[in-house]
Amino acid sequence: MRRDLFMKKGKIYVVGIGPGNMDDITVRAYRVLKNVDVIAGYITYTDLVKDEFAEKEFYVSGMKKEVARCEQVLEIAKSGKDVALISSGDAGIYGMAGIMIEIAQKEGYEVEVVPGVTSSVAGAAVVGAPLMHDHATISLSDLLTDWDVITKRIDKAAEGDFIISLYNPKSKGRTTQIVEARELMLKHKAPETPVALLRHVGREDQNYTLTNLQDFLNHEIDMFTVVIIGNSKTYVSNDRMITPRGYHI
Amino acid sequence: MRRDLFMKKGKIYVVGIGPGNMDDITVRAYRVLKNVDVIAGYITYTDLVKDEFAEKEFYVSGMKKEVARCEQVLEIAKSGKDVALISSGDAGIYGMAGIMIEIAQKEGYEVEVVPGVTSSVAGAAVVGAPLMHDHATISLSDLLTDWDVITKRIDKAAEGDFIISLYNPKSKGRTTQIVEARELMLKHKAPETPVALLRHVGREDQNYTLTNLQDFLNHEIDMFTVVIIGNSKTYVSNDRMITPRGYHI
Repeated sequence: MRRDLFMKKGKIYVVGIGPGNMDDITVRAYRVLKNVDVIAGYITYTDLVKDEFAEKEFYVSGMKKEVARCEQVLEIAKSGKDVALISSGDAGIYGMAGIMIEIAQKEGYEVEVVPGVTSSVAGAAVVGAPLMHDHATISLSDLLTDWDVITKRIDKAAEGDFIISLYNPKSKGRTTQIVEARELMLKHKAPETPVALLRHVGREDQNYTLTNLQDFLNHEIDMFTVVIIGNSKTYVSNDRMITPRGYHI
Repeated sequence: MRRDLFMKKGKIYVVGIGPGNMDDITVRAYRVLKNVDVIAGYITYTDLVKDEFAEKEFYVSGMKKEVARCEQVLEIAKSGKDVALISSGDAGIYGMAGIMIEIAQKEGYEVEVVPGVTSSVAGAAVVGAPLMHDHATISLSDLLTDWDVITKRIDKAAEGDFIISLYNPKSKGRTTQIVEARELMLKHKAPETPVALLRHVGREDQNYTLTNLQDFLNHEIDMFTVVIIGNSKTYVSNDRMITPRGYHI
């Protein structure tokens, strides 16, 4: 009688923890993290939850190790432990959900994706209601995507008068993409279009700047910033950025 | 000495409750609803929370009464009570956050927006990881937005090879918009592009259909359906819809 027939298969969860505090996490995500044996993730994210779930076993890995991280999570599940791979925001938006499902499927494992509040949504709430109407979400990271695909999307989103949320706008090594993105948007959007720079949303050092498409590059932007550019109806009133839905008031 | 100088001003919250169950609500949203005096909202949404918060006072209003609903919320706050106006999903995406801030500002009231898991994100998690890359969110409701603005956005989003989430795809009185939207997307997207129809996400009768751009109109779509159309890289494997981010596995 083979022992492995009776071995428990561990469950794999991919969990979006929201912006990173223990307030904007969902009840389900919190419960999953409380119940699993192992919490896995990139060190910046595991650092956000390690105090709250100090009793857990952690598997921590570095940046650009996404495939190896998922393979390790699969090994943990195969050893019989339940494991949650965490991303900040929502794990299904530029997070780990896709790659984890792809790797787990190779060995017949299922993955439960636990949704979370993505950064643009958390940031929008901080600054008012800029995402009230049709909007596009674009990552400026060209590590995994050709830059001409990204520029075409920026151009079409601006031409369609979408509100645009830019993820990964800039890092130490990537500084020119945001400059080109601004130029593309200025082809279709007015220079005075409101822009919100939302930094470290949901963290202790959360702060934001309200500016506009003409001037926003004169303010601090880093890899923990989400940039929201309004549509042609977006306005700023009393330090709130609002895109009207169209109600008559 | 005027009495009203000492009268407590009630606080106004706009709260996204997520898809509608008590699992996918955030910890902060749950706590706010526990602590306010009054929960206000459209009847479909208040019905979702009335059992959990049965001890609260409710202010319930009908559809298409959004402005009156916000004015009433302001009156409740002026009477000294803390009040939470709820939307399903995230209140800042086609929800009540914008209009509530606009009306509250007229009388100098601030509004705290509590973010939630929006329907496309909740639906994406059910079906796998279709939103992993750049995506556009478009409402097909032309009650408040000119149809030619909406069609332009569908066209540009499809041309930019965005993953597209359609909110409010169809109702009893609006049945032609989704037909035209499909035709516009077929100008730029292949007929075999995967499409997920996500119905009643997060509710007891949650269910979904995986289909494609050619065939999706042959399946049930109603006002509680979110439609997610993939980009050129999206595929379906073992009943999961995945948009790869671009990792080499």
